[in-house]
Amino acid sequence: MSLRDIAAPKKKPRPRYTRQLTAKQVRAMKKRGYDAERELVHMLRGEGYDAVRVPVSAPSKEPLPDVFAVKADSILAVEVKSQVRYAYYKKAQVQKLFEFLHMHRLYPRRYAVLAAKFKYKGWWFDVAEKLDDYTLKIDRGLTWNELLAKISRPMPTV
Amino acid sequence: MSLRDIAAPKKKPRPRYTRQLTAKQVRAMKKRGYDAERELVHMLRGEGYDAVRVPVSAPSKEPLPDVFAVKADSILAVEVKSQVRYAYYKKAQVQKLFEFLHMHRLYPRRYAVLAAKFKYKGWWFDVAEKLDDYTLKIDRGLTWNELLAKISRPMPTV
Repeated sequence: MSLRDIAAPKKKPRPRYTRQLTAKQVRAMKKRGYDAERELVHMLRGEGYDAVRVPVSAPSKEPLPDVFAVKADSILAVEVKSQVRYAYYKKAQVQKLFEFLHMHRLYPRRYAVLAAKFKYKGWWFDVAEKLDDYTLKIDRGLTWNELLAKISRPMPTV
Repeated sequence: MSLRDIAAPKKKPRPRYTRQLTAKQVRAMKKRGYDAERELVHMLRGEGYDAVRVPVSAPSKEPLPDVFAVKADSILAVEVKSQVRYAYYKKAQVQKLFEFLHMHRLYPRRYAVLAAKFKYKGWWFDVAEKLDDYTLKIDRGLTWNELLAKISRPMPTV
């Protein structure tokens, strides 16, 4: 390696693959997330759940879900995504749901619910039973009625 | 009443008794509230509670406390204030604590805790048992140890 190579290395900086969003796009994303969470709260209330949206201003380390809901002896911790085709749930997000549910271990039935609202295509769900990354896409996962059926009968708790 | 009176009424607009705060003062207030909430979370964890701060970006209609904590069969919903001499808890804020606790009625023991951190004078507490306005001031209320004693034995639930 010559001194010239050291002084002016040819290697280009690694390109960034993160999306660059304008302030307007960020606002639109937040609004879309907010609307989806509110819609889900209303859907849950319609099924007899006490449901609450947790307005977290910034990514927080606290083990709080986007939405939580209670009905009799069951509690749901829900991570809500509003996307076009795919919704990704990272292990760390699933971990937060598990921590929240662990705190409420007095409830005999506890469910870590992954919810995805796809543009023009409606809602798809999953119930996370192990600590892992999850993906939801259109037509893959549980429908709303399938989710309700699943969480209305006893299952292994986390 | 003359036309002149109607055209130029002598009555002055009612003075506003609200404080006018600069952006810097608002930031300092928020920081003080945040620090008090974090401190209380650590105090509760030291007593074996699972405690979580709820970061609410704006005054929200959702029935969420500033802090909630769980230990065995008891749950606390806490409204935290950081003030100089007096801390006021409006009925509507107490109502939110009651609603949150009502949602978690599976817990046999539920406490709506009012917490005030006074500058240089430390913490004072109360447990709200009826829906009303409350005031805490220095040397009036429960100390931390008195609060712990009160919530560690069964009491009428809300």
